[in-house]
Amino acid sequence: MTDYLNEYCMRTATCGELRRQDVGRTVVLAGWAWHNRDHGGLIFIDLRDREGYTQVVVDPDCVPADQFAQAEHLGREFVLKVEGTVRERMADTVNPNMATGEVEVMAASIEVLNTSVTPPFSIEDGIETDETTRMKWRYLDLRRPEMFQAMLLRHRFTQAMRTALNTRGFLEVETPILANSTPEGARDYVVPSRPNPGKFYALPQSPQQFKQMLMVGGIERYYQIARCFRDEDLRADRQPEFTQVDVEMSFVQDDEVLDLMEDVMRESLEAVGVEHAFPLQRMEWREAMERFGNDRPDNRFGMELVDLTDIVRNTGFKVFSSVAQSGGVVKAINAKGAGDWSRGDVEKLGAIAAENGAKGMAWIAFTTDGQEKSPIIKFFSDDEFDALKQAMNVEPGDLVLFAADTYEVASAVLSALRLHMADALGIERAGHSLLWVVNFPMFKYDADEKRYAAEHHPFTMPRREDLDKIEDAPLECGSYSYDLVMDGFEVGGGTIRIHNGDIQRRVLRRCGLSDEQIDEKFGHIINALELGAPPHGGIALGLDRLVMLLAGRDSIRDVIAFPKTSSASDPMTGAPSAVTPRQLKDVNLRLL
Amino acid sequence: MTDYLNEYCMRTATCGELRRQDVGRTVVLAGWAWHNRDHGGLIFIDLRDREGYTQVVVDPDCVPADQFAQAEHLGREFVLKVEGTVRERMADTVNPNMATGEVEVMAASIEVLNTSVTPPFSIEDGIETDETTRMKWRYLDLRRPEMFQAMLLRHRFTQAMRTALNTRGFLEVETPILANSTPEGARDYVVPSRPNPGKFYALPQSPQQFKQMLMVGGIERYYQIARCFRDEDLRADRQPEFTQVDVEMSFVQDDEVLDLMEDVMRESLEAVGVEHAFPLQRMEWREAMERFGNDRPDNRFGMELVDLTDIVRNTGFKVFSSVAQSGGVVKAINAKGAGDWSRGDVEKLGAIAAENGAKGMAWIAFTTDGQEKSPIIKFFSDDEFDALKQAMNVEPGDLVLFAADTYEVASAVLSALRLHMADALGIERAGHSLLWVVNFPMFKYDADEKRYAAEHHPFTMPRREDLDKIEDAPLECGSYSYDLVMDGFEVGGGTIRIHNGDIQRRVLRRCGLSDEQIDEKFGHIINALELGAPPHGGIALGLDRLVMLLAGRDSIRDVIAFPKTSSASDPMTGAPSAVTPRQLKDVNLRLL
Repeated sequence: MTDYLNEYCMRTATCGELRRQDVGRTVVLAGWAWHNRDHGGLIFIDLRDREGYTQVVVDPDCVPADQFAQAEHLGREFVLKVEGTVRERMADTVNPNMATGEVEVMAASIEVLNTSVTPPFSIEDGIETDETTRMKWRYLDLRRPEMFQAMLLRHRFTQAMRTALNTRGFLEVETPILANSTPEGARDYVVPSRPNPGKFYALPQSPQQFKQMLMVGGIERYYQIARCFRDEDLRADRQPEFTQVDVEMSFVQDDEVLDLMEDVMRESLEAVGVEHAFPLQRMEWREAMERFGNDRPDNRFGMELVDLTDIVRNTGFKVFSSVAQSGGVVKAINAKGAGDWSRGDVEKLGAIAAENGAKGMAWIAFTTDGQEKSPIIKFFSDDEFDALKQAMNVEPGDLVLFAADTYEVASAVLSALRLHMADALGIERAGHSLLWVVNFPMFKYDADEKRYAAEHHPFTMPRREDLDKIEDAPLECGSYSYDLVMDGFEVGGGTIRIHNGDIQRRVLRRCGLSDEQIDEKFGHIINALELGAPPHGGIALGLDRLVMLLAGRDSIRDVIAFPKTSSASDPMTGAPSAVTPRQLKDVNLRLL
Repeated sequence: MTDYLNEYCMRTATCGELRRQDVGRTVVLAGWAWHNRDHGGLIFIDLRDREGYTQVVVDPDCVPADQFAQAEHLGREFVLKVEGTVRERMADTVNPNMATGEVEVMAASIEVLNTSVTPPFSIEDGIETDETTRMKWRYLDLRRPEMFQAMLLRHRFTQAMRTALNTRGFLEVETPILANSTPEGARDYVVPSRPNPGKFYALPQSPQQFKQMLMVGGIERYYQIARCFRDEDLRADRQPEFTQVDVEMSFVQDDEVLDLMEDVMRESLEAVGVEHAFPLQRMEWREAMERFGNDRPDNRFGMELVDLTDIVRNTGFKVFSSVAQSGGVVKAINAKGAGDWSRGDVEKLGAIAAENGAKGMAWIAFTTDGQEKSPIIKFFSDDEFDALKQAMNVEPGDLVLFAADTYEVASAVLSALRLHMADALGIERAGHSLLWVVNFPMFKYDADEKRYAAEHHPFTMPRREDLDKIEDAPLECGSYSYDLVMDGFEVGGGTIRIHNGDIQRRVLRRCGLSDEQIDEKFGHIINALELGAPPHGGIALGLDRLVMLLAGRDSIRDVIAFPKTSSASDPMTGAPSAVTPRQLKDVNLRLL
């Protein structure tokens, strides 16, 4: 099964493959000494390679004396080559927790290929070593089986994606890393050019413009497992460089991109043993916001948002009625199972509401013994309260949490509370759930910059029926756009692109650019659209996050071989580091 | 056969697939109007997509009037969607030069998906448009069939390499682009880090240190189609960023790496229809230098170097005898077929010798009519001249070209003359020839820097039997090293690496580094070697150059979707470009 692993190298078997049927085989193993112990004049070594562990027995009567002497002084992580014979373990020494636990290898010769100083942490799963230490000795961390499995999963999933795309006529095309700055929101990493003093490349935030150029260039179906770069402040799921499964196709509409990607995802998930039902739900953006308060709903549990605005429009509780009467919304979630929480515990939730912009958080607890507790009940009429309870489907044991604010703030608050309560109440969220969120608005209003901006990006095609709204009613203008959501995370997003120069110009103007700015920054794109660009669209999946979810890890750093810390540095190599004055002078720069 | 190209999109057939057996089929095509012409009241359009061309006929009786009117004003490169019926062409209009030349599509409807302004050059193969123009409108250049075929070949070859490695237990692992500076010879591209003022990442010249770390990390078999960066002055076969098929494996010796790569190459070449005999020749470095004067021999033709040093050691031609007596060499090649060249033409070859360091170039012409012409014959004794002719296997019609100099200069001169004469004489060099050149010296002496340097790189393992020579006789120290050579180009190179911290230190010291410098620059590597590094080695193939040769092109720019010019710029996007003062300030820099 793993025979191919024993070609082109010194071993004849991996440390993971030997079973009872191999008894009698002469094998050569190579790997790391994991556990060594003396017992009854024999030396027992658990030898580890990436495929598993095998017990090696060194008997002074069976190996040359100098080798036995060496074996007596083996340290952890010494690298060994062992030749020997597979034999059955005695019944009382069989280890059922070990795949190779029925056999052991009786050494005939043992060679130390390399020694090791004592490692700073143990090479095993589930260690609690702090992450900076693991990153400084990343080459040791990677020896831990769970890290190898994460790399293997990433490899298999990525190759399965490639296969799925290859078999459908997609070409992988490499696009430049030394690219130009494109205004896509985040900060660019810049690279000075020596032959062009004062000029800089930008590392791509995505291959967006290049993949569109490939469509204009008639490649028709493109993909790339593409490295992307954003100089942002880091969080657990952000890295300075990250990897995107980047796909673009011509002569398509939005549903065709979704159909393709569902087939690609189905085959790729199958390749790594994950089952999921297809076709996927395609949820309107508006519906996701209404029901879940965000555009990346975790739909593996309920506790959906309920709109109470109409019910409380004229209530005596002025906090609600004034919001309801002034264009805001009053919404709530029902956290079933929290009805008996203490007032103190409930009110601590207010901090989550506040973090998301709320000025306060109203609540009503329905205790399991039938009481209704809340400072606000007294303000409601009986009819209002009955309607509220009915709308919220209230039973004893429920806790209703309210948000009364603008649509955006109320959504953010209840979305955050919903996820928090799911964790707090231990609501089961096993398995994976994929769905599409589709038809995002074309524009959003940026209150800080006092201008409209593209919700996805300015190359997104507005909906055909909404083209007039680009100028007349931008916030009502729809777009051909879609996000892939998994387990409450956005794992991909894409759009049908503008293929017409005029529409591109109109959208860029709506985003506040002057014609001069458009020509300067986007001239080459508009030129390309005016030279026979086909209708096209695509998507980009966040590979790191997808693999993180599939591997059941909490951080993308656990599925990246050599990640950076939160200060964007690599404790192993010391990057970034100082450069020589000569290097700076070569690129016409000096430090401030 | 290409049905998968008609899923997930608006067309039901490509422009390359229709044949006589499709007659009667109703199809939807989408593509670019290539040639349009009116004839007998009908409009004929050659519609092009990436798969080929199909003739579309628009008859005013068969399409709506407004569509016919539009079709009358189609320009080149307009994007069309055509629905129609496949019909057989009349016998006299069959086009045998066109794969679809027996049929045409009678349009029932025709829709203009996009217009086009007049393209700056024609979308067809073999254009003589200057390259900067092609690069400025690269999206048009890519529409030319030969460019699409180059991208397709690159894709197929790359995926075949992946498949060959995947099936042998290799994992593709992504290594950082934001890396640290490693002293590997060429100039690094540097990237300032915003949260670490005054510190810089370096873009990797290769993933060398990371792939070794992966081996120390127990990944055992790694590969990556890896982007690499060198800030060097550019030539036809150099680009600021280039792609390497990067492979590393543990528990191996050199022959095992070669065995693996031969299997990978065989399968990958087969996948793109290239035949080559395996196993490949494994030529000692010394032999390559002796016979071809360089370490990347084009062995598809003879004209090998012959050593005449012993024959001319005591000759009266002092230029030869003094070189032979002072440790230099006298070597020659026999350019068969150039014996009748004029003295002027022959002496022009002296410029090539001079470019390669020679002070002059001796020659002897043997004309087809039996004369022996040369200013130097008179200096030879009859015995010497007979021995020389015998050694050079002289016949009428031959031209013998000499180099008398140090071994290095004589090799370089004759190597260059050999390739030049092959071109000049039109010597057939069809097909491809792959071979290994193995066992390079460990060190070379850098006369400018007055120190030894590693011939491959300082992570290369010296030959076991030569370890003492690191200190005692560095130029005689061999190494476990190998280059893959194709058609006279180095297309890959690798080594078995040092896996022992002590040996690594000794090699770095021999390269002139102090212990302090070693600790500072290579400390993390030596630490890793001291923590149980397994024996390992690998190779990196130059993908751009390999694909260039397979595609039969002269420049790697023709097999890269978006290459840079010789000034490292991209005329399409304008990269590199100025950045804002704010962007510079963010990274703590100012322009000089």
